[in-house]
Formats: sequence, C-alpha cells, structure tokens
Amino acid sequence: MSTLIIITGASKGIGRSIATAFAKDTRIAKLKLCLIARNLEGLKQTQQMVNSLSSSQRKIQTSIHSIDLSEIDTLHKSIEKLFKEEIQQDKFERTMLINNAGSLGYVGPSSDMPTPMEMTQAVNFNVTSAIWISSYFVKFFAHQHKTKCNVVNISSLCAITPFKTMAMYCSGKAARDMWHKTLAAEEPSLRVLNYAPGAIETDMTDILANAKELDPELSAFYKRSKAKHTYIQPATTAKKLVNLIMEDKYASGDHVDFWDE
Amino acid sequence: MSTLIIITGASKGIGRSIATAFAKDTRIAKLKLCLIARNLEGLKQTQQMVNSLSSSQRKIQTSIHSIDLSEIDTLHKSIEKLFKEEIQQDKFERTMLINNAGSLGYVGPSSDMPTPMEMTQAVNFNVTSAIWISSYFVKFFAHQHKTKCNVVNISSLCAITPFKTMAMYCSGKAARDMWHKTLAAEEPSLRVLNYAPGAIETDMTDILANAKELDPELSAFYKRSKAKHTYIQPATTAKKLVNLIMEDKYASGDHVDFWDE
Repeated sequence: MSTLIIITGASKGIGRSIATAFAKDTRIAKLKLCLIARNLEGLKQTQQMVNSLSSSQRKIQTSIHSIDLSEIDTLHKSIEKLFKEEIQQDKFERTMLINNAGSLGYVGPSSDMPTPMEMTQAVNFNVTSAIWISSYFVKFFAHQHKTKCNVVNISSLCAITPFKTMAMYCSGKAARDMWHKTLAAEEPSLRVLNYAPGAIETDMTDILANAKELDPELSAFYKRSKAKHTYIQPATTAKKLVNLIMEDKYASGDHVDFWDE
Repeated sequence: MSTLIIITGASKGIGRSIATAFAKDTRIAKLKLCLIARNLEGLKQTQQMVNSLSSSQRKIQTSIHSIDLSEIDTLHKSIEKLFKEEIQQDKFERTMLINNAGSLGYVGPSSDMPTPMEMTQAVNFNVTSAIWISSYFVKFFAHQHKTKCNVVNISSLCAITPFKTMAMYCSGKAARDMWHKTLAAEEPSLRVLNYAPGAIETDMTDILANAKELDPELSAFYKRSKAKHTYIQPATTAKKLVNLIMEDKYASGDHVDFWDE
C-alpha cells in the first residue's frame, strides 16, 4: 500500500521543496506525488527533481496536473476527475494534502484597496479555492475511500500577526487557518496542521521586497534578508515540515511556525 | 458640526439595535444615521424607530439605502455615490462605520462544503464586500474629507474560536478581524474596533438553531438560550458597543467581546 501526497503550488518555491523533501525522506516506503500548479513547465522541472531522487530500491511515482486553482467555476470538476484518476491507479493507505498554493494579492495601504471585483481573483484563489480543496480532499479520501489523512495548510506568520500593507494576504491566511482549525475540531481522526514556513527566499518574497507600496520596514527586512543571506532556505523549512508530519506530535489544528520549538 | 454614523445590515437584528442605541445616546449632540441593507421595508422600520427617539431638542437625521452588498460588481459605484451624497448634505467632524452586514453562509460538515462557485456569494458578502467598504470609508472620510473616523467591525467569538460545522462563518469573521487589525496598525489616527456582540437573539440565531446540519451541541445551546431566555438582548449588546465607542478606552484594532471586562 502506498502513500499519496498531493501538493498544490508545486511548480516552484516551497511547494517544489516540499515535494523533494518527501522524495528524500525514506520513512515513506512507497510514495506517489501528485503535483498541481498552473505552470506546466515548472511542474515538469519539479517532477524531474523528484525523479532524480527515485531509485530502483525506492521508486517514487509522480503525476503532474496543470490546473488554475483560481478558476472556481471549473475547479470542482477538474479536482474530482484528478482524485478519481489517482485512486484508480493505485491503492493508498495514507493520503496527504499539502494545501500550499497562494498568491500575495493586493499589497499597499488598506485604505486604498482595489474594487471588490478586482479583489475577487485573489480571494477566490487564496480563500475559496483553498478551503474547498481541503474539504473535498477529506470527503473523497477520508470518508469515501477510508484512507488515513493529513491536511496541511501552508500558513504564515501573517495569519496571526497583522503586517502593514499586507491586509489581504494576512486576512486570507487567517481565514484559511480558522477553517482548518474548525475542520480539526470536527474530525478527530484527521491530522490537520497549519504550518507557517517562515520568511523564505522564493519568487513571492522577491516580488514582495520590490512591491512599490509595501510598508518600508517590511521592504527593508526582505531586502536585508536577501543581501545578508538570512532567509530560511525552502529546503530547510520543507524538511522541518516533513519531520513535523512524520513525527506526528502536534495537536491537530495547531498553527506551528518554523521557529517554534 | 455633525456626527455621521453609517450602519450596514441596519434593517433588523443587531444593526437595528445599534441604530436605536446611538439614537438614545445623547453624548452625540448632532447625529445623522445612514442606514444600509438589502431589505427596504426593514430599513423603513428602523428609520421609524429612530425617528420616534428624535425630538425638537435633539433632531436625528436619517437616510436609508437599499443596497445588496453581495453584488460586488456594482458595489463600489453605489457606495461611492452614497458617500458623496452624505457629504454634500451636511458637514461632519466625525464619521463612524458600523460594518455589521453578514450572513451565515454554509452551515454543515467542513468535509462537505458546497462547490467553490456556490461558496462565492457568501465569501463576496462576508469578506470581500465587508473589507472593501471599510477600506473605502477610510479613504473617503478620513483621507479625502479629514473627519475623525471610527471603524467598527461586527465580529464574533467565531473569529477567534472554531465552532464545529460553522467553518465558513468562522473563517469569514477571522478574515475580517485580521484585515481590521492590519488597518489599525497602518493608521494610528483611526479608532478601529472588532466587536463580538455575544450570542444574541436575532433572525440569524433562530435560523442557526434550526439549521439541519448544525453541530448538535451548538444547536442545543441556541435552543436552550431561546427557551430559557438567556440570550443577550440586541439592545443590551448595542448599548455596550456604544459605550465602548464613546468611552474610547480600547486599543485600536482590539477584538473586544460583550463578556470582556
């Protein structure tokens, strides 16, 4: 029996690093990685990196799926199809969702938000879509197919601390944390984790550091982190997350930060 | 110079009670209430209740506006027009937004959420629209028209505590709290309050108590509160809120519950 790990936002950044961290971790003997993102080229690169960590002793299966998770009118059909295909191809005793995909959305003064219509794409992507995927994952894999399930929401310090000029990002992360806490309260047999990976060097933090309207103190912090090489490396925080999951000591629903003991 | 208080969801429940609580409180000498909701009949009733509290010594002005706050494609135009009309009719030294409108959204197991498309109306209403109105209120009244501003987000215990089968409501309230906390951090001259009014007897709690898929313990709590008359009355919590605002002792951005000291 295999373990299936579904990772959204797997074409780059921390999503890619989590994929390779699981590929390196031999505690999971039979592993299938299901990698989802919009960017197919990035997915192929992640797949290659995983394949290079596969061996004849421990062959890692992969599948890649180019899906735009902000297209909420078609999302449920594409995800339902994908989950069905996975379950038809193998038998899984354990399944994990690494609910990682997300975007910055609007960065700038809270008193100058874009129009409601302009806000919807980010809200659809970061809140509605993210919540629905976790919900459907549990329905499909835990309830209908009786696998042991881990649900990991990739959170942020922003979920619990307001960061100036990042109100949309903070509130989206707060919404996701709270939704997953409620899920954990309802379903004691699940293992639910809100993981804040720390300030890591990714495309997102590069974009953020140079966002014109970012709070000057935050901008200086991100630029200094890059210049002084004090960012957490994606591989480091991904490894910490894999250890958290495999050691299984957190309370379900917890918000755990990279820097926590 | 007058004080303008804009209340969303003013056609019933706590929105109506907040309108009448301000009408009763003589600490605001010259008061204009701008009442917004979808239901025009309810708005007219609230207006009548306010008018009955008005006197020749302290004449309370009112305006009512039937607007569907979930219609996010037209929302910014209707609110921009409304705010302009208010400022053309009077001079205000102080303005308040009581950002109260909200809906329950989906109630039921988190593992059985409706499709993303079906979730959007509640997310648009409770998150996107609510956030945008606070944002535009600050831009228009604090920045462009230089009035002293209070922003009150009507929150809930659900914003900080997961309630089983109410994940959508909880996560929407968490998102609103966090957005308003960020606003408070950015703008020290504003007075921002996240107020949790407690379990009050309103249409919403009546609907909730009878929601088929509500967690049985919560359902029993709401039914017991109604049967034993232990709900907080809307007028009681509305008065507490008015006192909080007028006494002005909270830290901007705080989440304050009815039951807090």
